[in-house]
Amino acid sequence: MTVGFAERVAGAVASTGPLCAGIDPSSELLHHWGLDDTPQGLRSFGLGCVEAFAGVVPVVKPQVAFFERMGSAGMGVLEEVLAACRDAGLLAIADAKRGDIGSTMAAYASAWLDPASPLVADAMTALAYLGLGALQPAFDLAASSGRGVIVVVRSSNPEGRSLQEARTAGTGADGPGPAVEDMLLGEIAALNHGGLPTAGTVGAVVGATRTRSAFDLAALGGVVLAPGVGAQGGTADGAARLFAGCPPGTVLPSVSRSLLVAGPDTAALRASAAQECATFGAALA
Amino acid sequence: MTVGFAERVAGAVASTGPLCAGIDPSSELLHHWGLDDTPQGLRSFGLGCVEAFAGVVPVVKPQVAFFERMGSAGMGVLEEVLAACRDAGLLAIADAKRGDIGSTMAAYASAWLDPASPLVADAMTALAYLGLGALQPAFDLAASSGRGVIVVVRSSNPEGRSLQEARTAGTGADGPGPAVEDMLLGEIAALNHGGLPTAGTVGAVVGATRTRSAFDLAALGGVVLAPGVGAQGGTADGAARLFAGCPPGTVLPSVSRSLLVAGPDTAALRASAAQECATFGAALA
Repeated sequence: MTVGFAERVAGAVASTGPLCAGIDPSSELLHHWGLDDTPQGLRSFGLGCVEAFAGVVPVVKPQVAFFERMGSAGMGVLEEVLAACRDAGLLAIADAKRGDIGSTMAAYASAWLDPASPLVADAMTALAYLGLGALQPAFDLAASSGRGVIVVVRSSNPEGRSLQEARTAGTGADGPGPAVEDMLLGEIAALNHGGLPTAGTVGAVVGATRTRSAFDLAALGGVVLAPGVGAQGGTADGAARLFAGCPPGTVLPSVSRSLLVAGPDTAALRASAAQECATFGAALA
Repeated sequence: MTVGFAERVAGAVASTGPLCAGIDPSSELLHHWGLDDTPQGLRSFGLGCVEAFAGVVPVVKPQVAFFERMGSAGMGVLEEVLAACRDAGLLAIADAKRGDIGSTMAAYASAWLDPASPLVADAMTALAYLGLGALQPAFDLAASSGRGVIVVVRSSNPEGRSLQEARTAGTGADGPGPAVEDMLLGEIAALNHGGLPTAGTVGAVVGATRTRSAFDLAALGGVVLAPGVGAQGGTADGAARLFAGCPPGTVLPSVSRSLLVAGPDTAALRASAAQECATFGAALA
């Protein structure tokens, strides 16, 4: 029996507290760390994050875009960073936000979720503009090895509201169906509760800056990744209200810039990460 | 005055006919071409496509996923293929379907649209689940150099219908607003008609298998990329009906697998591509 991604995350959270620490080597943060905006700088930054976060946070999230901007050289550095995460026992979510259909989606799944891929991570993020069903090749591959796919559903930025709150047609004659975001959450819950061979395979990105939507997140059956805390204004108390009722260890507040400015000093970065874990652990308990 | 992406495409279409030829080195097609499923196989496939398509089609579309599945080595091959496109005078759309917010979206834009990037293409495809406004860093960078961003709006696959046809809230008291896809098309048109410093920067993916939606595509002001012809059942006549009224040279029927099976023989692939261009040229005239 394969241990599902949500269970793996909950196990890691139990020993450290809940947090997803971003690994975001933007030009700005490289400069702040005194590093060059080059593949060598990326490498120092990424490996420095892994060293600081190991044993202190349960999950890290390399932002693929900041590696991809340096082309194949940057992607080679990302391979090294992901390997370092595995060696350090850190669960890694590749924040790739990929989304496509058919054999193309299968190729993205292969890149990020196939154990034989140099870019393999424990989970990838995905976009469902083409429908949640289009992501099925990624769900299937993830389920086969206890990995995860975390679908962006209710994002923290204001520009996404009109699309994500648009009303689907529904199935009956009694008016419109659920909002797009609630439709996706319902479909994700169905996958986690028997729709896939491994429970807890599919997660959702739900911005911590948002209010609750109609869908009860406690019924999701998967990991909730919650960006928007820190720099974007979300607080631990707000997250506690938003995610009340979610099972222990399934909610991962996601922090990046506001945490990474504590570097490059490893001890300082490590201490900041530990404190964030403790704060969210207390709030979400 | 920067020549916009739509004008560059129309210029290329005027000399060859309209077609976007996919460069899709899937495992299946590599096998069909007698190539190994390795970076060396990817390279032979990609450069073979460029050789066959040069001078015969206006635009090619490397599918990033099929390179990314081989990690940094695959992305290095994609850099070579994109360089070969530039040398051959082929406009290249990187089919990346990226989508994010803020500095992360700026990093994706930098990867695919910055002339200094090893992965630079003439345009990239993008997903707008986070709202069209979240893609602004890509629009700005594209506009500055006559490059393009082609946003997936009305996809050819059935799984996307419920999301893309969901009704937005609208602005007044007179019932729901436009469907998600029509809202995006309207926003794209506004960007192309004065919303950006360069006209014709933003395009849309509209599946050739679909019927017309409420938005009149003739008013888009940008390139329409139309997948779904060939393998997915779309025909030249159907495309002609769907895109009636669109300005000459702005509609690019997109073919991949159904064309690429004509390889690996360069002359045969070239002849197939030329015939597709002629067929669509006649239908869309």
